[in-house]
Amino acid sequence: MQKFENESIYFELRKMQGWNFINGYIEKNFVFINFKDAMTAMIRIGFEAENMNHHPEWMNVFNKLNIRLRTDDAKGITEKDFSLARKIDEIVNSINRH
Amino acid sequence: MQKFENESIYFELRKMQGWNFINGYIEKNFVFINFKDAMTAMIRIGFEAENMNHHPEWMNVFNKLNIRLRTDDAKGITEKDFSLARKIDEIVNSINRH
Amino acid sequence: MQKFENESIYFELRKMQGWNFINGYIEKNFVFINFKDAMTAMIRIGFEAENMNHHPEWMNVFNKLNIRLRTDDAKGITEKDFSLARKIDEIVNSINRH
Amino acid sequence: MQKFENESIYFELRKMQGWNFINGYIEKNFVFINFKDAMTAMIRIGFEAENMNHHPEWMNVFNKLNIRLRTDDAKGITEKDFSLARKIDEIVNSINRH
Repeated sequence: MQKFENESIYFELRKMQGWNFINGYIEKNFVFINFKDAMTAMIRIGFEAENMNHHPEWMNVFNKLNIRLRTDDAKGITEKDFSLARKIDEIVNSINRH
Repeated sequence: MQKFENESIYFELRKMQGWNFINGYIEKNFVFINFKDAMTAMIRIGFEAENMNHHPEWMNVFNKLNIRLRTDDAKGITEKDFSLARKIDEIVNSINRH
Repeated sequence: MQKFENESIYFELRKMQGWNFINGYIEKNFVFINFKDAMTAMIRIGFEAENMNHHPEWMNVFNKLNIRLRTDDAKGITEKDFSLARKIDEIVNSINRH
Repeated sequence: MQKFENESIYFELRKMQGWNFINGYIEKNFVFINFKDAMTAMIRIGFEAENMNHHPEWMNVFNKLNIRLRTDDAKGITEKDFSLARKIDEIVNSINRH
C-alpha cells in the first residue's frame, strides 16, 4: 500500500467534512449527545477496524471522540485511511441522527 | 408500577410499528444489514436497558434480532416496556439509516 | 467444510464442559453475575464470530445466555462450531472470574 | 464529593498497582493481547462508568489503553476516581487472564 503525497492528501480531504491533516495523521473531532452514543460509535467503528485490520488512534471523554488515522507500515497516509475515515463518517452520521 | 389491561396494551401498540402482543410479551423482529449493525444495536439498547434497570429477552442470529419485553414484577406489560420499546425503535431506526 | 457424524460430535463434546447436542445444534447455557458481564461476553464473542464469519444463535435475558451453534452450509456440526465453542468457553471463563 | 489532598492521593495510590498521579489526573497504561480485548475492556468499563455517571478520559491504539481519571466538579481527585480505578483494575485483570 503506497502512501499519498501531501498534495494528494489535501485533495482527498477537500471531498470530506471536518477531517484535517495534522502531524502526519488525518484527524477529526466528533461530538455525540451522550457517552452511550460515543461508546456505540466506537464499537461499530471497532468492528470495521478489526475487519480491515486497520486501527485508529482515538481519545474519548464523555460525549467527545477524537480520531486520528495513519498507516504505520507505509509511514504515511494511504487509501486504507481514507477508506476507514469515510466509513467512520457514515457510522457517526447515522448515530447522530438519533 | 401497574400492569396494563389487554385493551390498553392493544391501544398503545396501535401507535407503534411492528410490535405485537404475544404470549404475555410485547415483541418485535428487526433485520439489519449485517451482524456488526445488529451487535451495535444490542450494545446501544443494552446501555439503555441497564440505565432503566429493565432488560429485554432477545434472540440474535446474524443480522436478525427478536426482542420481547414484559415487566416481571408486575406480571405483565407496564409503562416501562412501552418506554423501552420506543427507545429501541429510535435506536434501530438510526442504525438502519446507514 | 465437512459435517461431523453424530458419533464424532458426542466424542468431541465429551472433551468439553456443559455443551450438549440438541436438535441439530451444539448448545450451552451460561450464567453471569449481571447483565453488564453478559453483554461484555457477547461483544467479545461477537468480535470472534465476525472474524471467523461464523455467527451463533443466541438468546439473552439479564445475566443468562444461551448459545447454539451449527454450520448452515454443511447442514450440520463442523470443526468451525467446535472451534468457536472452545473460544466461547475461554472468553466466558475469563469474564466469570471477576 | 470532596477532593483529596495530594498526600492522601499518594497514600491511596501506594495500595494500587501501576497508577500514577500526573497533571492532576490518576493515570494508568494497560496492554492487552489484541484490539478485541482492548475494546471489550472499554465496553465493560463503559457500563461501569455510565452506572456511576463518572467517565474516564481514555486513549486507545490497537492493544494499548491509557486511562486518566479526575472529578471535574471537585476540580481534583475524589473517592469516585479511586472507586472507578479499582473497578477498572478488576475488569482488566479478568480480561487479561484469557
